[in-house]
Amino acid sequence: MTSQGVTPRSKDYARWYTDVVRKADLADYAPVRGCMIIKPYGLELWENIKAGLDQRFKATGHRNAYFPLFIPMSFIEKEAEHVKGFAPELAVVTHGGGKELEEPLVVRPTSETVIGHTFAEWIQSYRDLPLLLNQWANMVRWELRPRLFLRTMEFLWQEGHTAHAAKEEAEEETMRILDIYADFAITDAAIPVIKGLKSVQEKFAGAEASYTIEAMMGNKWALQSGTSHFLGQNFAKVFDIKYLDENNEQKLCWTTSWGVSTRMVGGVVMAHGDDKGLRLPPKLAPIQVVIVPIWKEDAEKALVMETVNELHAMLVAAGVRVHIDNRVGITPGFKFNDWEMRGAPLRMEVGPKDVEAGAVILARRDSPGKEGKESVPRDSLIATVTRLLGQIQGNLLEQATQFRDANLHEAGSYNELKEITKDGWALIWHCGTAECEERIKEETKATSRCFPLDQNEEWHPKEKTCTVCGKPAQGRAYFSRAY
Amino acid sequence: MTSQGVTPRSKDYARWYTDVVRKADLADYAPVRGCMIIKPYGLELWENIKAGLDQRFKATGHRNAYFPLFIPMSFIEKEAEHVKGFAPELAVVTHGGGKELEEPLVVRPTSETVIGHTFAEWIQSYRDLPLLLNQWANMVRWELRPRLFLRTMEFLWQEGHTAHAAKEEAEEETMRILDIYADFAITDAAIPVIKGLKSVQEKFAGAEASYTIEAMMGNKWALQSGTSHFLGQNFAKVFDIKYLDENNEQKLCWTTSWGVSTRMVGGVVMAHGDDKGLRLPPKLAPIQVVIVPIWKEDAEKALVMETVNELHAMLVAAGVRVHIDNRVGITPGFKFNDWEMRGAPLRMEVGPKDVEAGAVILARRDSPGKEGKESVPRDSLIATVTRLLGQIQGNLLEQATQFRDANLHEAGSYNELKEITKDGWALIWHCGTAECEERIKEETKATSRCFPLDQNEEWHPKEKTCTVCGKPAQGRAYFSRAY
Repeated sequence: MTSQGVTPRSKDYARWYTDVVRKADLADYAPVRGCMIIKPYGLELWENIKAGLDQRFKATGHRNAYFPLFIPMSFIEKEAEHVKGFAPELAVVTHGGGKELEEPLVVRPTSETVIGHTFAEWIQSYRDLPLLLNQWANMVRWELRPRLFLRTMEFLWQEGHTAHAAKEEAEEETMRILDIYADFAITDAAIPVIKGLKSVQEKFAGAEASYTIEAMMGNKWALQSGTSHFLGQNFAKVFDIKYLDENNEQKLCWTTSWGVSTRMVGGVVMAHGDDKGLRLPPKLAPIQVVIVPIWKEDAEKALVMETVNELHAMLVAAGVRVHIDNRVGITPGFKFNDWEMRGAPLRMEVGPKDVEAGAVILARRDSPGKEGKESVPRDSLIATVTRLLGQIQGNLLEQATQFRDANLHEAGSYNELKEITKDGWALIWHCGTAECEERIKEETKATSRCFPLDQNEEWHPKEKTCTVCGKPAQGRAYFSRAY
Repeated sequence: MTSQGVTPRSKDYARWYTDVVRKADLADYAPVRGCMIIKPYGLELWENIKAGLDQRFKATGHRNAYFPLFIPMSFIEKEAEHVKGFAPELAVVTHGGGKELEEPLVVRPTSETVIGHTFAEWIQSYRDLPLLLNQWANMVRWELRPRLFLRTMEFLWQEGHTAHAAKEEAEEETMRILDIYADFAITDAAIPVIKGLKSVQEKFAGAEASYTIEAMMGNKWALQSGTSHFLGQNFAKVFDIKYLDENNEQKLCWTTSWGVSTRMVGGVVMAHGDDKGLRLPPKLAPIQVVIVPIWKEDAEKALVMETVNELHAMLVAAGVRVHIDNRVGITPGFKFNDWEMRGAPLRMEVGPKDVEAGAVILARRDSPGKEGKESVPRDSLIATVTRLLGQIQGNLLEQATQFRDANLHEAGSYNELKEITKDGWALIWHCGTAECEERIKEETKATSRCFPLDQNEEWHPKEKTCTVCGKPAQGRAYFSRAY
């Protein structure tokens, strides 16, 4: 254990994850089994994720709306695959206002059905299309063995829902969102995700095709970090989402849906963390710079705090998220370890000597020891902080990319797949069938992650056969252990 | 009905409200009775309300967190008054994951209980205090006769929850938040709310004292627009929220809670709307300036749209929320009426002549006809828009204040109260008893709104007796019809 009570990552990955999420005050278990409480530091991280995505959605013409928490049970039952997929996970309200309800209400596990019903009312003519909506909301899927952020009964997410006149437009939208997700993950979260198509077995219940961004965590497991679904006309048919085209003919719409959830917080923790705890990418970090004032006597304190407050104001004015750790009764050394564990990208130390020298010490979280430490004159503080935050952001992405690339392997045989998936991702030619995926899962615990787009310019290539079963291949797919 | 299908406010206030909320695309009824769908225009209005409040909470040291949707039934039952107040309004989950639950879960009607439970775990020592949290979330209180935004089964809100070592600190917090609410309402929403104390009957179930901001709507009814509760040690006792003080003695905490909900959207609609529809205060308006391009021939269109796009970019860069209405097949006249109904503070008309003259026409929503219209040279556009938005904001507040003051009356007798409350608010000396409030409500439909703080520097003034029943007075209180 570190001095902050965190089990080293190298020792026990699962325990490290839970330790760091709880000790860094990201989240806690709730009194209701399966649920979590998101603490301020964790929620601020989520709010930064939210802002990065929301801005991208708005820039591409989407608007936010809010649909109800409760969905009539009959809605869920309308789409055959959908109800099959979600029935085992539903929370059901049977009593309200002191009475038993005539029709039970489902606490939304996702909103395709109620939004489909609403779209049918809102959309009349081709002029109403495309309809591009997004909602930020809480969802419930029954779950009694929670992992904080990764798998909880209640979670927060955004779900986009769009309707289009033409199939091609809906397909373009599906890919546009996949690109937005990948851009956010790479640029803001510093996670080099792989874009791909889910296999038929792994797609969303009711979709024609599901696309995903898959991220590699520090233990080489995969985390599905966002999905974008082309729903075809499945929901349009059952909810009667129709429009009159330019020739006054009635046509069915084509729809999409897509989501990123609080799982992403878990992804950020696991993609970048190390033995000492969190390493947060500056673009998402709730606190980008933590200031630790150092003094021994009261006279020193007054001097130091005057400078600290000035520097704090300067950084705030420059748009830097900065926090002064002025806890009493705790040594600077403890604070250094504590903020290392909490993953603040930059630590600023200000002591009497620094004040005298008109400088401060900056220490990078991503570069331990003396190497990542420098004395910076006050005059160039803002410029240096800005530059270092950019460098840390870039460095985390580079480290994660190198790590990912070192752990992606082609498997030429099932035996090779078995070896590789013990500690990495295996790329194989894959038939895409349930039979084959179940066998692999049973024998190796690895699951089908995706058919990566950049490895599949061609689908169903002639003469290519499944590396595992020998049937005709749909394309190349990654397999690995996954959350 | 106006050309936009809105019943004039002067003709039927209730119908006008529903018409304008639906026609202006603020909200719609949901398939589940009692619930609503918040449409993009309405949600953007709420997001601006949210931003105005959130910024004020953060500036006073509060941090956001997120607590679970589900609360064990046993928690709700712990505080006697609390369960009495909320039991009839609960939505109850009895089945989850395909099984009947051992203990039913309540969908949160408010979070005092689960947060109380959590505070007891998080707070150990005086160093953990004060604990200042806020959460933005959805709540459910059973309701089958909804009024969009004003009273719906599910609503969005923020709920602040704080814990303090000293009683005085908790009391100060309660008042600090009341001041924040009033400042937001007056400065951002242009609603001149009255701060006051709720009577014992009207206070929050479980509070020692509830404070409120009461707003006067266009029909002179009151809308309770935000409440701040001093909870004393009620929740601390039942949830065991204790801390060790400097002398290592265990003490009970003092707590507060406070909330503003999507009701505020309804308040903005009703405080400022007129016969033609909405009038949104610029600080909250999703669209502050709507640009209506005007042309007849295609050549004109190209010319006009070039200018329109330039001006749009200029305004966006200046931080103005601006929208180009480029709907086709609709006349400019229709668009003018439409945006009047939707309450955009400023309309900008750009036609070929304006382009030639290097100017645009600006028309104020709050000043109908020629008086509110002016031709503005492009060079001074930003300055003029900024000035006009400020003037409109100020004018809405002034109009609302004059309206309010003209409809506040002192009542010297119960008969006067009866007369006044037919069409205004009556200020009386009030005993504060349930008996008296019930009688007044039954006989006049007016309810006790609050003991306004600025009229009650002294409580229980000697020799003052209740205007209605003659018992000793607690203070001066407003009575009126209310939502």
